[in-house]
Amino acid sequence: MSKEAPKAFNVGICGLGTVGCGTLALIQGNSDELCRKLGRKLQVTHVATRTPKTDLNTDGMQVSSDIFDVVADPEINVVVETIGGFDPALELVMQALENGKHVVTANKALIAVHGNEIFTRARENNVTVAFESSVAGGIPIIKALREGLAANKINWLAGIINGTGNFILTEMAAKQRQFEDVLAEAQELGYAEADPTFDVEGIDAAHKLTIMASIAFGIPLQFDKTYTEGISHITPEDITYARELGYHIKHLGIAVNSGDAVEMRVHPTLIPSGSTIANIDGVGNAVLVHGDAVGATLYCGPGAGAEATASSVVADIMDIARIDSVGASAAIVPALGFCEPHSDTEVNDIEQISSEYYLRIQVQDKVGVMAKISNVLQNCDISIEAIIQKEAHSQTLPIVLLTHTAPERQINEAIQTLEALEEVVGKIVRIRVAPFADGTL
Amino acid sequence: MSKEAPKAFNVGICGLGTVGCGTLALIQGNSDELCRKLGRKLQVTHVATRTPKTDLNTDGMQVSSDIFDVVADPEINVVVETIGGFDPALELVMQALENGKHVVTANKALIAVHGNEIFTRARENNVTVAFESSVAGGIPIIKALREGLAANKINWLAGIINGTGNFILTEMAAKQRQFEDVLAEAQELGYAEADPTFDVEGIDAAHKLTIMASIAFGIPLQFDKTYTEGISHITPEDITYARELGYHIKHLGIAVNSGDAVEMRVHPTLIPSGSTIANIDGVGNAVLVHGDAVGATLYCGPGAGAEATASSVVADIMDIARIDSVGASAAIVPALGFCEPHSDTEVNDIEQISSEYYLRIQVQDKVGVMAKISNVLQNCDISIEAIIQKEAHSQTLPIVLLTHTAPERQINEAIQTLEALEEVVGKIVRIRVAPFADGTL
Repeated sequence: MSKEAPKAFNVGICGLGTVGCGTLALIQGNSDELCRKLGRKLQVTHVATRTPKTDLNTDGMQVSSDIFDVVADPEINVVVETIGGFDPALELVMQALENGKHVVTANKALIAVHGNEIFTRARENNVTVAFESSVAGGIPIIKALREGLAANKINWLAGIINGTGNFILTEMAAKQRQFEDVLAEAQELGYAEADPTFDVEGIDAAHKLTIMASIAFGIPLQFDKTYTEGISHITPEDITYARELGYHIKHLGIAVNSGDAVEMRVHPTLIPSGSTIANIDGVGNAVLVHGDAVGATLYCGPGAGAEATASSVVADIMDIARIDSVGASAAIVPALGFCEPHSDTEVNDIEQISSEYYLRIQVQDKVGVMAKISNVLQNCDISIEAIIQKEAHSQTLPIVLLTHTAPERQINEAIQTLEALEEVVGKIVRIRVAPFADGTL
Repeated sequence: MSKEAPKAFNVGICGLGTVGCGTLALIQGNSDELCRKLGRKLQVTHVATRTPKTDLNTDGMQVSSDIFDVVADPEINVVVETIGGFDPALELVMQALENGKHVVTANKALIAVHGNEIFTRARENNVTVAFESSVAGGIPIIKALREGLAANKINWLAGIINGTGNFILTEMAAKQRQFEDVLAEAQELGYAEADPTFDVEGIDAAHKLTIMASIAFGIPLQFDKTYTEGISHITPEDITYARELGYHIKHLGIAVNSGDAVEMRVHPTLIPSGSTIANIDGVGNAVLVHGDAVGATLYCGPGAGAEATASSVVADIMDIARIDSVGASAAIVPALGFCEPHSDTEVNDIEQISSEYYLRIQVQDKVGVMAKISNVLQNCDISIEAIIQKEAHSQTLPIVLLTHTAPERQINEAIQTLEALEEVVGKIVRIRVAPFADGTL
C-alpha cells in the first residue's frame, strides 16, 4: 500500500497590493524550498483583488473580486489579510476566524487597536492569528520576543521601528538638511506617503511598540496608553548639538517595565553615539531588547518593502502549517506570549516617567540669563549634566542643556517657568535621552 | 467537577557547571513568569552532579551523582545535557532519546560532529532535540534561521561567533597590542581557557558555523568540511593597514550558497568599516544573514555566559513544553529546518572559493621590487585594487595589497611564487575579504 502524499496547505490572499503580491511571488518563487522544509506543498489557491493584475501568475487559482469569497472558501486553510486599515479588515479577519480559518496579517494598526478581541475570537474558534510582519517588517522580532527570549523577564526594549522617520533623521544628520526638505524627498522616493502623518508623527511606530510591549511584559494591547510624539519639530541644529554631547537623535519606540508599572512611549530620543543602534541609518529598522537573563540583544533589518514583509508573512504561514501537520490547530504559543496577560499592570502616563533631558533654549543675548535659567532649574530640583553655549551671532543665541535624571513633571514645570522668562524666545525644544548606557549594543 | 490543573513539565539537568547552574537558577528565579507563559509549571525535579553544590537550592529535587540516573527517571520530560565534550555526552543523549526523553543541549561540538545520528535517533523515538544555546549563546539565531527566515533561500551568512576571539581582536585594534599579550589578559579575565586552541584557532566557531550552515542551506552537518583558520598570526600592524584600506579585521564564520555548491569557512576577515557587524566589539557575538526575500538581517548579543546561555536553554525547554501541551511529541520543526537535507549538495574546498584578498608582503628595500611583485600577480591573473607602501625605516618594508576578486588557487600560486623571490622576506600574510559590500548592516 503506497503512502498517501501529505495534503497541501492552502493559502488565500485578500488584497493584492504590495504585501499581497510579495507574498504570492514568494510562495511561488520558493515553492520547492518551502516544500522541503514543511514536508508538504504550500500553495495559494484563492486571491481576491478589486483591480485585476495581469502581471501575476494566477494559474490554477480562484480569483475573486470580493475578499469575503476567500474566507468562505472551504478549501482555504489560512487567510492572509493584506488590505490594511480597520474597515473592512476587522470584519474580514473576524469572519475568517469564525469560519475556522487561520489568519496571517501585516496590519499593525488592526492588531494594536483590535488585537485583544481578535485573539479572543481566535481562541474561541481554536485557530491561530499570526502577525510577525506587522512589526519591523522582515526582522523576526515577534518570534524573538515571544519564543527566543521567552525565559526572560524583559526589562525594557527600544526600537527604530519606522523606516521613513529614520530615513529623514539620517538625511538631516548627514547633510544638515531641514525636516520639510527631506520629507519632500522621501515622498518622491516612495519612502513616505502623500499624507506622512502616520510615519512622522509616530502613530505607526506606536502601533508597533504597543504590540511589542504587550508580548514583552504580558499585558493586554493598550494602544491608547502609548505616548506618541513625532519628529517634525527636530532641527539639524538639534542633531548637531546632540552629537557634540555624545548622542545621536533617533525616533525610538521605548517600553520599560519597572516592576510596578510599565511605560510605552514613542518620541525623538538621544542615544549614546557609541551604541550600535545609534548607527542604524536609512530606512532600516532595529530593536534592542533587554532581558533579565540574556542582557541586551539587538535585531536589525529591513522594516518595510514587499519582499521583506512577505518573508515574515510566509514564515507565519509556515509556522501554522507545521502546527497543522502534527494535528494541532490552535496556536502553540499564545498570540501575546502569555496565557493570561496581566490586565491590572499599570501603564504610566508620560508625566509619570523620569528621564535625562536635552533642552534647547533660545535666549536674548543679555547678562545674567544663564544665572536665571540655572535658578529655575535648581528650584525645580533639576541638575545639569552638560551645557553648550556658543557665541552669539545675532540678538538671540541657543543654550543647550543636558540634565541628569529628573521626573517629567518637574521638567514640564521648569519648561513652563523658563518660557515665561522675558529673556527666553519662543518654545523650548525638549528631547528625552534613552534609558540605556553607552556601550549597550 | 473542578478542572484538573495542567501537569507540570519536569526537567532533569545533567551537569551543574556554569550552564547547568545558570539553567537551574533561571527556571527557579522566573518560575511565575514561565508558568504564566506556558500555562503549566516548569520545574527541575532531578539534577546530577559529581561535586555537590551547597550554594544551590535543590529543595524537592532528586540529586544524583550519576548522570544516567536522570535519563532513567520516569518522571523526567526533558533532559538538559550541560556536561560538554563527546564522552559521555553522546552516550547520555542517545540513552535519553531511547528512553523517550526530549533533550536540550548547549554542546556545539556534539551537535556539529554527531548531530546527524542524534537527530535520526530522536526521530526514531518521536522526541525533540533542541540546541539553540549551542550557537551564539543568548541570541536566538537558530530560531531566526529555522523559523523566522524560513520563507527565504539563505544566500549567505557571516558571524562573529566566538567571543574570545572577538575580545582579542578588539583589544589588539584599540590598543595596538600583540596577540599573545591580549590572549594572556583574556585568560586572566576568564574569557579564554587555559588551553585557548578551541577559541583562537577557530574550532569552536567552526562547530557553530557548521550548525548554522546546515540549517541555512538544508544540508547534513559536515564539520569535517568546514575550513578553519585561527587568528594567532594576525598582528596589530595588519589591523592598522586594514583600517587604512577601509576595513576592520574580525574572525568570521562564513557560509555561502552559490546554488551548485556551498562554502563553510572560518578565518580572519576584512569587513567594510562602515558595516554594523564590523563595529561589534568585545566578547559580543553577531550574525549577519542574507535571505533572498528579506535581504540582510543582523542579530547581536552575548555569545556566552551562564545567564545568557541559560536564556536559550530554557527557551528550548519552553518550546518543547508547548509542543507537549498540545499533545504532540516529536519536533514540530525538523532539527535542521528541512525534512530532508540534501546530502548531495557539494561543499567546496577552500581552494575552490574566490575572494578579494589582503596580502602583506615584507620585502627588501630594493629598486624594482614592486615591479617584480606586480609581474607575479599579473602572471597569475590577479589584479590589484589598492596598495599601501610606506617609507622604509629599516632594511625591509611591508607592501600591503588589496586584490580584486580572484580564485583562491591563483592566490596560493601567487603567494608561493612571491615567497620564492629573493626580495621577499619570510611568509606572506594573507587575509580574505568578506563577501559583502559596505553598507550591509
